[in-house]
Amino acid sequence: MSESKSLFELIKFDSAGLVPAIVQDSSSGQVLMMAWMDRPAIENTIRTGETWFYSRSRKSSWHKGGTSGHIQKVDSIRVDCDGDTILIQVSQHGGACHNGFFSCFYRELDKNQDWHEITQPVFKPESVYKS
Amino acid sequence: MSESKSLFELIKFDSAGLVPAIVQDSSSGQVLMMAWMDRPAIENTIRTGETWFYSRSRKSSWHKGGTSGHIQKVDSIRVDCDGDTILIQVSQHGGACHNGFFSCFYRELDKNQDWHEITQPVFKPESVYKS
Repeated sequence: MSESKSLFELIKFDSAGLVPAIVQDSSSGQVLMMAWMDRPAIENTIRTGETWFYSRSRKSSWHKGGTSGHIQKVDSIRVDCDGDTILIQVSQHGGACHNGFFSCFYRELDKNQDWHEITQPVFKPESVYKS
Repeated sequence: MSESKSLFELIKFDSAGLVPAIVQDSSSGQVLMMAWMDRPAIENTIRTGETWFYSRSRKSSWHKGGTSGHIQKVDSIRVDCDGDTILIQVSQHGGACHNGFFSCFYRELDKNQDWHEITQPVFKPESVYKS
């Protein structure tokens, strides 16, 4: 089962040239967010040691934390069995979520099948994202 | 910021009626896999307390572990800020990966930009998946 394949030999991009990337906080194990990467985003992430993604709405690459300062320092990059999902373990500065939470997954389903918030924000979005 | 929204009020399906679901092992914090869910897969997951997904290749729902016995007992279901990704925390029986590994993310990028395996398999695929 042992193998050694090069970076882009194993990654399978979808028809739009993108692959989903799960971001996990290394120290706490918390899943922070899921975003999309194109080939340049992967190359920039490796080159800079900080995460870059591809915005499908803006149709361009973006440096996570470029505006907010809430960067993600890359600790490891993993790929799944099918090569169509990436897992990036990071040291998160500030919070990953633009709503002010450490993780974007701050709402959990309760027994009544309603979502409720399970954590408190770690920063105030209005003080970080100025229009 | 407090809110209480019902299950499908918050989930945003893509144009194919699907939403990506990240599965994380509750006790170890390991990210196990990413798969897609349609509305019935979400309903079945909640109803049975075990994960169901939608196979885009087979165009049908499937019960994770239905063949292998490697089911995932659901501990919590979370949703991200945009409502377009789900995080399911589970107790994984056996291994999540059809290649025999506990997690599908068993390969990590090294400094030479090659992928190498970082864990050992927990079961033999050929003894679980019989043709």
